[in-house]
Amino acid sequence: MYEGAVQDLIDELGRLPGVGPKSAQRIAFHLLAADPVDVRRLADALTEVKARVRFCDVCGNVTEEETCRVCRDPRRSPAVICVVEEPKDVVAIERTREFRGKYHVLGGAINPIENVGPDDLRIAELMTRLADGTVQEVILAMDPNVEGEATATYLSRMLGPMGLRVTRLASGLPVGGDLEYADEVTLGRAFEGRRLVSG
Amino acid sequence: MYEGAVQDLIDELGRLPGVGPKSAQRIAFHLLAADPVDVRRLADALTEVKARVRFCDVCGNVTEEETCRVCRDPRRSPAVICVVEEPKDVVAIERTREFRGKYHVLGGAINPIENVGPDDLRIAELMTRLADGTVQEVILAMDPNVEGEATATYLSRMLGPMGLRVTRLASGLPVGGDLEYADEVTLGRAFEGRRLVSG
Repeated sequence: MYEGAVQDLIDELGRLPGVGPKSAQRIAFHLLAADPVDVRRLADALTEVKARVRFCDVCGNVTEEETCRVCRDPRRSPAVICVVEEPKDVVAIERTREFRGKYHVLGGAINPIENVGPDDLRIAELMTRLADGTVQEVILAMDPNVEGEATATYLSRMLGPMGLRVTRLASGLPVGGDLEYADEVTLGRAFEGRRLVSG
Repeated sequence: MYEGAVQDLIDELGRLPGVGPKSAQRIAFHLLAADPVDVRRLADALTEVKARVRFCDVCGNVTEEETCRVCRDPRRSPAVICVVEEPKDVVAIERTREFRGKYHVLGGAINPIENVGPDDLRIAELMTRLADGTVQEVILAMDPNVEGEATATYLSRMLGPMGLRVTRLASGLPVGGDLEYADEVTLGRAFEGRRLVSG
């Protein structure tokens, strides 16, 4: 429809999640009219994020170092690991200031429709972290939806025989939603009220 | 909230129109997990669009040459000019295949709240194009909203004394909306049924 570079940009923007063709066009024309310095900054931010950001060797969270900020922090208890699906869940939980342990980011949830099985998640890495006996509690903080529940059930079965305390976040989170959309208070209360699954 | 480069990207994405903080975060994490080649392509598309795309010297439409595709096309009649607010309106009208004349892109509409007056639009350029008597009809194709109506009224008063045919798109366009959201059939019919304002 448009000439070369404009259409290329609309096409690329349209591939982003939640950006339909009309939004892509709107964003493209906004950028066409925008200060070149601002557009350059967005292009640089994209390049930088791929060049500098990696996943923490220990927990799988995003970081620019070998290990993430939480894993490096000596004030955080290594005795409790909170298992989440995605790095953005770490940010949501950190916002509550309720949790002072470490994290483990699975990189998703079990989802047969999308062909995501346990082997596609960082479960083996979690098991390795639990081997030396430092960890006493594992908090399962998956999203309160079907995939999250399936993943939590799978993990609680695997962790059950290991003699650890395994807990789930309290219900109170709105069912069917994403953890990241919960407000701080709700999420904080869900943390406080977490229930024992085994151990 | 996040470490350096991730937060920088979220901030930059959040400045785009229609992209809230949650969407910005979602897009950033999508890009973190995406193929670096895809992200590079988006970054390049941004850089390219600013480097290559400019506004047509004649009509103000977007182009990668000195003049746009429509202005260069010898099969398009120079006797009819369709005046629109934005380049995306050109695309919307081209899609109807109803119009075989040329365009003039104002670069916006009169909007006192946003401090956009007639002098901020490409009205002087339009007058220059009308000077040699080639143009016999000017079609005012502003958005059917308050700003568009105000701009059309202003232009029809300026053009009235020039002895040209001045027309407006037929009503039939949903009032209060944006021209770009009209479907092809509606917009095509609005073209056919355009009414004479003066001349």
